[in-house]
Amino acid sequence: MFNAAIYEKRRSDLISQFKEGVLLFLANGEVPMNYPANTYRFRQDSTFLYYFGLDIPDLAVIIDIDKNEVIIYGDEPNMDDIIWMGDKPGVKELSKRVGIEVTKPFEKLAGDLCKSIGKGRKVHYLPPYHEEKKKLTAFLLDLKYQEIDKYVSVDLIKAVVKQRAVKKEEEIMEMESTLSEVTFDMHVTAMKMANEGVYEYQIAGAIKGIMLQKNRMLPYPVICTVHGETLHNNNYDNKLKKEQVLLVDAGSESILHYATDITRTTPVGRKFSNRQKEIYTIVLESQLKAIDLIKPGTDYKSIHLEAAGIMAEGLKQTGIIKGNIDDVVAQGAHALFFPHGLGHLIGLDVHDMENLGEDYVGYDEKVLRSMQFGLAYLRYGKILQQGNVITVEPGIYFIPALIEQWKADKKFSDFIDYSKLEKYMDFGGIRIEDNILVTDKGHRILGKPIPKSIDEIENIA
Amino acid sequence: MFNAAIYEKRRSDLISQFKEGVLLFLANGEVPMNYPANTYRFRQDSTFLYYFGLDIPDLAVIIDIDKNEVIIYGDEPNMDDIIWMGDKPGVKELSKRVGIEVTKPFEKLAGDLCKSIGKGRKVHYLPPYHEEKKKLTAFLLDLKYQEIDKYVSVDLIKAVVKQRAVKKEEEIMEMESTLSEVTFDMHVTAMKMANEGVYEYQIAGAIKGIMLQKNRMLPYPVICTVHGETLHNNNYDNKLKKEQVLLVDAGSESILHYATDITRTTPVGRKFSNRQKEIYTIVLESQLKAIDLIKPGTDYKSIHLEAAGIMAEGLKQTGIIKGNIDDVVAQGAHALFFPHGLGHLIGLDVHDMENLGEDYVGYDEKVLRSMQFGLAYLRYGKILQQGNVITVEPGIYFIPALIEQWKADKKFSDFIDYSKLEKYMDFGGIRIEDNILVTDKGHRILGKPIPKSIDEIENIA
Repeated sequence: MFNAAIYEKRRSDLISQFKEGVLLFLANGEVPMNYPANTYRFRQDSTFLYYFGLDIPDLAVIIDIDKNEVIIYGDEPNMDDIIWMGDKPGVKELSKRVGIEVTKPFEKLAGDLCKSIGKGRKVHYLPPYHEEKKKLTAFLLDLKYQEIDKYVSVDLIKAVVKQRAVKKEEEIMEMESTLSEVTFDMHVTAMKMANEGVYEYQIAGAIKGIMLQKNRMLPYPVICTVHGETLHNNNYDNKLKKEQVLLVDAGSESILHYATDITRTTPVGRKFSNRQKEIYTIVLESQLKAIDLIKPGTDYKSIHLEAAGIMAEGLKQTGIIKGNIDDVVAQGAHALFFPHGLGHLIGLDVHDMENLGEDYVGYDEKVLRSMQFGLAYLRYGKILQQGNVITVEPGIYFIPALIEQWKADKKFSDFIDYSKLEKYMDFGGIRIEDNILVTDKGHRILGKPIPKSIDEIENIA
Repeated sequence: MFNAAIYEKRRSDLISQFKEGVLLFLANGEVPMNYPANTYRFRQDSTFLYYFGLDIPDLAVIIDIDKNEVIIYGDEPNMDDIIWMGDKPGVKELSKRVGIEVTKPFEKLAGDLCKSIGKGRKVHYLPPYHEEKKKLTAFLLDLKYQEIDKYVSVDLIKAVVKQRAVKKEEEIMEMESTLSEVTFDMHVTAMKMANEGVYEYQIAGAIKGIMLQKNRMLPYPVICTVHGETLHNNNYDNKLKKEQVLLVDAGSESILHYATDITRTTPVGRKFSNRQKEIYTIVLESQLKAIDLIKPGTDYKSIHLEAAGIMAEGLKQTGIIKGNIDDVVAQGAHALFFPHGLGHLIGLDVHDMENLGEDYVGYDEKVLRSMQFGLAYLRYGKILQQGNVITVEPGIYFIPALIEQWKADKKFSDFIDYSKLEKYMDFGGIRIEDNILVTDKGHRILGKPIPKSIDEIENIA
C-alpha cells in the first residue's frame, strides 16, 4: 500500500466535498468459481482501494461527515483462519497503516448504520455490482432490492469521480513502472511468438505467465487473436496462418492494482504485406495524430472525431470509402470499420470507474454522449484536464457479419463501396493503443516505448 | 465436448432414477471482477457440464421426467454479440452436438416452470452457490430467499452424486492425459526452480504459465510456499531460503474441465537436510502405504486412520510423539501435525461435488463423519468402489500458532513432547499428494509418475 498520508489526503479531500451525512463503502468479497470454497483470485473494489488501501475481503467503512470520523468494520482472523490462511496482519493493524485508528467487528455495521438512519441522516452509497453486495446494501439500509439503484448517491459518485479522474504522481508511477517492466515484455514476447503454426493460446499463455511471474493480476481478459475484428474475443483456439494479423490487447496491473492497457497488432511472421501495410499505416497515423492533440482544455470527443476522420480519409485512398469525409464522419459511415470509441480513462480500473456509471465518468453538461452507432460507444468525451490518463486506441476492422448486414440494407451506399470490400473479408482487424497522461501543457505517452512503427515491428530483435 | 452418446447415456441414467417430476438445472453466469462488464474467466457449473456439456453462460435446462423430455433455455447471439464476441455457434447448434433437439429462449423458462408448478408437480433443484442463481431460483420457484436451502432436492443430490462419483473411461482419460501432459511439467518446473533467492511468485507464475500455454484453467488456486504449514496459503511473497522446503499444491484442468490435484514438497536447493529427510520419509511412507490399501470395498476413513498411525509412529521415532500410537490416533493427538483429511474425490471439481454438500458426497449411513479435530476435516470417508478417483495427500506440518495454543493448554501432554518441538518451529510443512483410481481389484496411480522419492527429487535433471 501507499503510505498513510496519501490515503489520509484522499479521504480529507472526499470529506471536504460533503457538508453532512454518512458515506458507506463496501469492500468486495470472495467470489465462488464452481463451489463456495473454491474462489476466484480476490480483487478488491477499486474505490475501496483508493480511499482505504486494504486489499482483503469482507470489510466495510463508514465515514461520518459530521464527526469527521472513519471506522473500518471487519473481523480479526481466528485460529482456524491462521491454520488455513496463515498468520497475517489483521484488520486493526492494516487499518493503522492507512491512518485509520477505529475498527470494529463487522457485525457492528448494521447497528451503527441503523443509529444514523434512525436520526434521519442521509447514507450515501455507490452502485453495488456484486449480487451479495446488492443484498447487503438492501439489508443494511432497509431498502427493497429493486430500490437500490434508485437511492444510489449521485453526489458521492460525482465526488469520487472528481478525485479518481485526476492522477497524482504516485499513481502515475505505478502505471508507468508496470508499463515499462511488465506490459512491455508481454507485448514484445507476443510479437516474437507471432509465427505461422503457433496457436493463439500459446501466446496468450506465455504473456500471462510473464505477468504472473511478476506477481501481478490481469486488469482485464487478454485479447490475443487473428480475428481482431471480434472486439472482445477471448477464446484462443486459432492457429496463426500466413497473411493474418495478430491483435494483442493486454495489460498488467501494478502491485497496487493500477491498470495498464496496450494493444499492438503484428503480422504473422512479422513481415507486413502491402495490404496490411496500407491499413496499418492508416491506423497508426490516426493514433499518432490523436495523441498529438491531447492537452488540457481539449474535449476528447473532438479528438475521437478527428481520429475517425483520418481513418476515413485513409480508407478513401484505398477506394473503400467515397464522398465527402466530413459528411462520412458526421453521419457515422466510418463506424462500419471503427465501431468503438477512441479511448477511456484508465486508473485502478481499466475502464476507470465504469461501475460508477460511464456517463458520470465520461460525460457532463458540457459534453453529451451521442446516440450514433460507433460514437455512442465512446466511453469518454469530456474536456481533458491535467492528471487524466487516457487510452488512445483507434482501429480498423473488417467484420464480415456487419458488412453483410449493412450491404444488404444498402446502408451508407453513397459513402461505402461495398464491392471493394470483397477482398478484405478475411483481413481481420488492426488496433494500436497506448496510455497517455495529460500534462500541464500537453501530454506524455506513459512507459518505455513498445515497438509500434512498421519498421520497429519488422525488425524486432 | 464428448460425443452426444456420452451425454445421452448420463441423462438417461439420471432420468431412470426418478419416477416423476421436473429436474431444473441452472448454468453458471459471468461473474464481475471490479465492474459488471469486466468478468472473471467463465467457469461452467460442473453438474451442468456433466449432463449437458455446454460451456457457455446463462443457460437453464428442464428435464421433464414424465415426458422424458429435455429442453435447453438460452438466447441465440444477436448482431451486437457477433461484433463484440465473434460469430460462434449458438445454443441450438451446440445443443444438437450433445443430443438435445429442443431449445427455447431463456425468457420462456419461468412460464414453462410455472405450468409444472401449477399442476402441483415437484421441481427438483440443486443448491445454488452464486448469489444471482439463488435469486433466480427463488424467483422461478416462487420461494423466499430464506427457503431456497430448505427445498433443495436431496433426491436429486443423491442421484447426481451416485453418477458423478464413478468415473467412466473417457473421464479417467481426461484426468490422466492432463496429469501426464500438463501437471507433470508444472511440478518438475517448480522443483527445478526451487532455489535460494527465488520468490514464490516467480515459481507460481511460471507453472501457471505452463498451464495457460496449454489452454487450460486452474482447478483451484495454486499453493506455492515455503510456509506449507499454512494449508491454503496463496500469497506468494516469500523469498526462498536455505533449509526451507517449498510445498507446491497445483493442478490443471483438462480441456473439458476435469481437475487434477498434485502436491510435491522440495527442499530449497533440492538437497534434503537430515531433519527434512526424516520428516519427508515419514510422510512418504504414509502416502505409499495409504495408496497400497486402496481397493473396492475398503472404507476410506480407515485408510485415513492407518495413514495417521504411520505418521504418528514416525513422529514417535523422532521423540515428538510419545505413548501408545493407537491411543494417540484414537484421541486425535496426531492432528496437531496432520490437521486435515487424507483426501477427497476428484472429478469435474477438485473437491468433487462439494457444492452438493460434502456429507452427501463423502459419507452415508455406513460411514459417518467424525467431530474430532482433524478427522472432522476428512472430506471422504465412504467405502471405495471401482471408478472412484481420490486424492491421497498426507502431510506433516509445524504450525507455530497451533503448537503454542496446544502447549499453553497442555493439550495431549501425555502424547506430545512440546520441548522437542522448539527446533521445528521454522520447519514449515510437507505434503505429498497423488490422484488414485480405484480399479476392479485395487488401484492405479493416474498419470506419468512425478518425482517423489528423495532420490528422484535430489537427482532431477
